[in-house]
Amino acid sequence: MSEQSAAAAQVAAEQQAREQALVDQVVASFDNAEDARLKELMQALTRHLHAFLCEVRLTEEEWQSAIGFLTAAGHITDDKRQEFILLSDVLGASMQTIAINNEAYANATEATVLGPFFVEGSPEIPLGGDISFAAAGQPCWVEGTVTDTDGNPVPNARIEVWEADEDGFYDVQYDDDRTAARGHLVADELGHYRFWAITPTPYPIPHDGPVGALLAAVGRSPMRASHLHFDVRAEGKRTLITHIFVRGDELLTRDAVFGVKDSLIYDFVEHPAGTPAPDGRDLVDRAWSSVRFDIVLAPAVPGAGTPSADRSL
Amino acid sequence: MSEQSAAAAQVAAEQQAREQALVDQVVASFDNAEDARLKELMQALTRHLHAFLCEVRLTEEEWQSAIGFLTAAGHITDDKRQEFILLSDVLGASMQTIAINNEAYANATEATVLGPFFVEGSPEIPLGGDISFAAAGQPCWVEGTVTDTDGNPVPNARIEVWEADEDGFYDVQYDDDRTAARGHLVADELGHYRFWAITPTPYPIPHDGPVGALLAAVGRSPMRASHLHFDVRAEGKRTLITHIFVRGDELLTRDAVFGVKDSLIYDFVEHPAGTPAPDGRDLVDRAWSSVRFDIVLAPAVPGAGTPSADRSL
Repeated sequence: MSEQSAAAAQVAAEQQAREQALVDQVVASFDNAEDARLKELMQALTRHLHAFLCEVRLTEEEWQSAIGFLTAAGHITDDKRQEFILLSDVLGASMQTIAINNEAYANATEATVLGPFFVEGSPEIPLGGDISFAAAGQPCWVEGTVTDTDGNPVPNARIEVWEADEDGFYDVQYDDDRTAARGHLVADELGHYRFWAITPTPYPIPHDGPVGALLAAVGRSPMRASHLHFDVRAEGKRTLITHIFVRGDELLTRDAVFGVKDSLIYDFVEHPAGTPAPDGRDLVDRAWSSVRFDIVLAPAVPGAGTPSADRSL
Repeated sequence: MSEQSAAAAQVAAEQQAREQALVDQVVASFDNAEDARLKELMQALTRHLHAFLCEVRLTEEEWQSAIGFLTAAGHITDDKRQEFILLSDVLGASMQTIAINNEAYANATEATVLGPFFVEGSPEIPLGGDISFAAAGQPCWVEGTVTDTDGNPVPNARIEVWEADEDGFYDVQYDDDRTAARGHLVADELGHYRFWAITPTPYPIPHDGPVGALLAAVGRSPMRASHLHFDVRAEGKRTLITHIFVRGDELLTRDAVFGVKDSLIYDFVEHPAGTPAPDGRDLVDRAWSSVRFDIVLAPAVPGAGTPSADRSL
């Protein structure tokens, strides 16, 4: 506040009056919007945008740079690359929107960003099956129980899982039509679930565009902490879209998109080659890992639907 | 404030703590930026952006719409069409940036937006010459004096002028290579200037893209009030980029880009056909108009250069 106050004090009263008059004029220009919510959004956007401009005393050259940045982001964006979502991600805006729409509820598992790599139509696997398919990576056994916030089992939750392979790529990032490291299963009547995946590894967000240049300019890493995506749905429960992260990962404190929550960091236990697998599977003398992730679902919000299929948060 | 307070009160303490913790984390991610100004800008942008998201409780669907809007703006933008500048314009951000960078100074003439139609290399005309060339429109006699804020004449100011024709188009909007309704001249030793132009007429900003759709959705007009652009430069004086507007124009109170200032509204006096022109010119029995615009220049800001050629505000 002291910096802002000092800057404000340097702006003469007549100047301040001119700047405020302009804000009032722009806000009033939305007064006749028929859609009350659109009016609220545009008026609030106007107030916060102008507060930013006036606080930092944006120069005309900086304004030019901002226009140039948005233009470059627009031009690199196509049906596979979404630079505006990346921008929202690295400013924490995606994660804040998730937080706002998944409010804290008792001990319910926290949500995090969906990310750009969810795709509809993943293969269904049986309980104890393997979602990795041909994806390269160390085998990872994942198990847990789905309960409500009172600790009662939630039966038959649909659990969808997806992740990058050990080279840091999701299946959809390859040029072929492979489906790998994604799948869904249904927990049992008691809420228990278990499946094989691969141990999560870190990877960078696309950083060869304007957002990558911004991160480089401010000394930030484009890396995401290692994670496994979950989408968990059950009758009468709030849909949970989240990740679990690997305790000890050095990227946990500087995840490029601010997706990490302390409560989502789990112990991925390493098992040396030769350790018997929990389901007796032959791991061909490979090391493997295991993690237990107990999922707590909040009640569904009355009147709220499930997130749309066209989601990208 | 009451609406905001009410909304905030509905957000539980734990939820508020989570949202604030995220803001703090994103702000801190810019702590190591080497460029102190870039750090200041990104940290302020983060605070204001998140304050907006939290105040309006942005839904995931609204976030999707915003991403879609920016994507569409990026895709319609090319080397001739600049939708992000239009967006900045209709949110008043361009005008606010102008206000911030041209602070109120005594009775100096106020600045307004440059607009997208300035081009370098306009023809020079003599004092009393005509900038309209082949542009269609009613002849308009423009005269005045350039002084400093103490009322002393400023000799030899360079005055550049440009405007739309009576059909609402600038020369550069036509497919041919015409140069019309633009030019520059030099005021005399006593600061006096005079030239022929055409009477300004209203025209819409490009509104067949996402910005036009936004204006339509909120019931705003895409029209700009009638105006004549000026760029006035003189040794030791702050460069003035402004317009003059036509008193009585019904669009003055709803200019699409908020460019109008009360002090920039002038009387364009209508003269019926047959009225002798001030310089004895033969107007071929047409009606004409005249306006007097006395220009007051602030002193140059020490250390500040002239605006760059690559300006679009």
